[in-house]
Amino acid sequence: MAKHKKKSIQRPKALPPKGFRDYFGGEVDERNLMLAKISEVYHRYGFDPLESSGVEMVEALGKFLPDVDRPNEGVFAWQDEDDSWIALRYDLTAPLARVYAQHRNELPSPYRRYAMGPVWRNEKPGPGRYRQFYQCDADTVGTASMAADAEVCAMLSDCLEAVGIERGDYIVRVNNRKVLNGVMEVSGLSGDDKVIARGIVLRAIDKLDRLGVDGVRSLLGAGRRDPSGDFTEGAGLDSTSVDVVMGFIDAKRGTTAATCARLRELVAESEVGMEGVDELEQIGSLLVAQGYGSDRIDIDPSIVRGLGYYTGPVYEAELTFEISDEKGRKRQFGSVAGGGRYDDLVKRFTGQEVPATGVSIGVDRLLAALREKKHLNAKARGPVVVTVMDRNRLGDYQSMVSELRDSGIRAEMYLGNPKNFGNQLKYADKRESPVAVIEGGDEKERGVVQIKDLALGARLASEIETSEEWKNQPAQKEILRHDLVAEVKVMIARAEG
Amino acid sequence: MAKHKKKSIQRPKALPPKGFRDYFGGEVDERNLMLAKISEVYHRYGFDPLESSGVEMVEALGKFLPDVDRPNEGVFAWQDEDDSWIALRYDLTAPLARVYAQHRNELPSPYRRYAMGPVWRNEKPGPGRYRQFYQCDADTVGTASMAADAEVCAMLSDCLEAVGIERGDYIVRVNNRKVLNGVMEVSGLSGDDKVIARGIVLRAIDKLDRLGVDGVRSLLGAGRRDPSGDFTEGAGLDSTSVDVVMGFIDAKRGTTAATCARLRELVAESEVGMEGVDELEQIGSLLVAQGYGSDRIDIDPSIVRGLGYYTGPVYEAELTFEISDEKGRKRQFGSVAGGGRYDDLVKRFTGQEVPATGVSIGVDRLLAALREKKHLNAKARGPVVVTVMDRNRLGDYQSMVSELRDSGIRAEMYLGNPKNFGNQLKYADKRESPVAVIEGGDEKERGVVQIKDLALGARLASEIETSEEWKNQPAQKEILRHDLVAEVKVMIARAEG
Repeated sequence: MAKHKKKSIQRPKALPPKGFRDYFGGEVDERNLMLAKISEVYHRYGFDPLESSGVEMVEALGKFLPDVDRPNEGVFAWQDEDDSWIALRYDLTAPLARVYAQHRNELPSPYRRYAMGPVWRNEKPGPGRYRQFYQCDADTVGTASMAADAEVCAMLSDCLEAVGIERGDYIVRVNNRKVLNGVMEVSGLSGDDKVIARGIVLRAIDKLDRLGVDGVRSLLGAGRRDPSGDFTEGAGLDSTSVDVVMGFIDAKRGTTAATCARLRELVAESEVGMEGVDELEQIGSLLVAQGYGSDRIDIDPSIVRGLGYYTGPVYEAELTFEISDEKGRKRQFGSVAGGGRYDDLVKRFTGQEVPATGVSIGVDRLLAALREKKHLNAKARGPVVVTVMDRNRLGDYQSMVSELRDSGIRAEMYLGNPKNFGNQLKYADKRESPVAVIEGGDEKERGVVQIKDLALGARLASEIETSEEWKNQPAQKEILRHDLVAEVKVMIARAEG
Repeated sequence: MAKHKKKSIQRPKALPPKGFRDYFGGEVDERNLMLAKISEVYHRYGFDPLESSGVEMVEALGKFLPDVDRPNEGVFAWQDEDDSWIALRYDLTAPLARVYAQHRNELPSPYRRYAMGPVWRNEKPGPGRYRQFYQCDADTVGTASMAADAEVCAMLSDCLEAVGIERGDYIVRVNNRKVLNGVMEVSGLSGDDKVIARGIVLRAIDKLDRLGVDGVRSLLGAGRRDPSGDFTEGAGLDSTSVDVVMGFIDAKRGTTAATCARLRELVAESEVGMEGVDELEQIGSLLVAQGYGSDRIDIDPSIVRGLGYYTGPVYEAELTFEISDEKGRKRQFGSVAGGGRYDDLVKRFTGQEVPATGVSIGVDRLLAALREKKHLNAKARGPVVVTVMDRNRLGDYQSMVSELRDSGIRAEMYLGNPKNFGNQLKYADKRESPVAVIEGGDEKERGVVQIKDLALGARLASEIETSEEWKNQPAQKEILRHDLVAEVKVMIARAEG
């Protein structure tokens, strides 16, 4: 017997897809304010904004692996009407490559551009890890000059100070992939047959933070057995070569000159290595000419993040102040931005190598840092609420609101059901209003209004249900209707301290 | 014989998907500036920003038709890892409904929110029609009060003036769907069996602009045969009823009172119709209380756009100044914003009716209008370019750039190959630089630099190849190195003058 199942009316769930979230009020304002300050710095440095489309051809993103029919992991992709695969951008660098290749004849050369906006990652979401988030990048395309790299480092330093990170609370550290290439060369890892070993070295030094010096040494040599018993094969370097690699990471000295001298000792026999040291020295001296000392930007070979990806200078901005982690332990806040030089950006499209260098600021990380340092504007941002005592006189209340707004004061009339006055006050509290305005029939007759300091009143609001009680509270003041704007201004100024 | 075709290296095309585009430099700045001005107004009115995720569950967007496996046309949708359908948002209203339903217990009630951002439409692109574009909305959710509608109209008027549309160059027109419902009722179109006829009436009056009065009359009556011979069935109204409908569209009089009196004549026998007229009167008198006369916001029953979608008041902002179309004919610029009241926003999720009203500003239309009125900041926005005469003295040039930047002047050093000085000047022209700075060895020795007014120089740049010729041009000036910042400031002020 066939079962007849009657379809019940299914209401859609009021939830965004997994890994997506919404941003409300102050969160949106704070981010926009921070990005506006960063834009101002980028603009002053001659960088032009670029807003590329959120959707790209998958092939332009380079996300097709050979012999795979569907786009690679990590992107949201689907087929367009004409069956071509299109996808949401997963960063701002791949679209820059496409835009530069497309418009290279019209764009200035070199092309300094910045971009801010959402990117999407089709990855497993986790706590604090979303599938849509903001990036904020600045890149210079079309010049091999170290002046471009020095400029990006200086700009990054200026950006951090512009948003409110004080000097001394951050450091921009600079390293160079070519020096590491030199280190590999003198360690006998330069041949085509050494690709795998070089990869092991890159991954090993990238794990310095996690594994410590001994762990990295094992990975550079014979290999490492982790506590669980798993064995990771090493790069097979002899102990002299391991010393050279570890010497590179540990080459930082008190001055740029001393650091570079130490690096030269290590890579003296490698042309590319010496070139890398030269580049670090050039960047150092250009920064001195611009007035940036090692208290802001420092040459530091221990910065290894990104060395696998970039082709020349690599830089990273770290916040050095301490925060308490979930378990109450003190630790440094850590990295908020990183970048470097990459020379194969446009080649995929045009066949030509175009040198480029740039930085990406971690928007959410930097916002979290500013929150930590209480640098975000936590001032009362709610509107003045004009309450409704008589629903037949909405025009009177609305004209008060208009006067306030015309004077630049954020204000609104209560638009809910005015019957329960307590609800109006609860609403004002929820809105974090600095001031409530009250005008009953009696006040209207006498040409006055009551204004109420709500910061003070918030404590009491839940206990008060009628306007009569309300009038007896100390934070309330009777003023002439005529003085409304002036008196509200005074009260807001007081609330904002 | 089997053919062996060797795969050639295929380079990806450097193009965005069909119907997508990029925005460069000034375009991005102009839009951001306009949106910032609008945000300021929204904020002053007590509206809070909301930035919802770009991706939604398809079922939350309501884009599944019954008995259809794939999401409806018009959205970009794909299946998530768990096989659920997700999609790019196609407007900012559907996400508002989802957010309000999800967070209704924590959000203030009524909830005033604004949202600005890209939306995506999977539609056939055309000239000026893209598949990703900006929307800019403000809505009040959770109140049936006409004060909310009046407020949105006032806010829309303030927004237009804030971005630079002068009073007299725009008008916000208000109509009400309930009045039209009343008109239908007195025309005998109120029964459940008249759904089709009511639809015909709605579509007919929506075509007033295109078909004119006679065309609409035909569609209200027996039907209309268009010039190609195609016949469109009419609503079947008798001539008295046709007169009533046309009387509604034509009810505008010199004052709100007179217009409302005329509407009352037409819908005297319909309760819902009279309710609609009352609402228009309430909006009118609230606006008067706020100081908005009919020169800014006008009750006008000829506004029929959106009447099919909204449930109460409907409003539309039109720019009334004339522009020339492609064929040189004068015409009014037309609509740049519209909105109204819709009461079933959240019902899909919660089963409860939640009244809401709001407006959407057409970002690209309004930008086009501002461009038309030359209200966009066309000032020289390029950076001062410090040229490179000696590639061994980059530090000297870079320190000039730093001094300029530290004084808030947009500046950069030329980062391309400095060999050909003419290329440096061409670059500066492309960047729309106001000033170029030149310091050769001779100048360095004498403690001076040359500064050049490029607005003037642009004409000549293509003819000049050496720095010697360059020095003889009248727009160039030798100044003390020490006076660089002060003199550049003077020259920029002159260029912007």
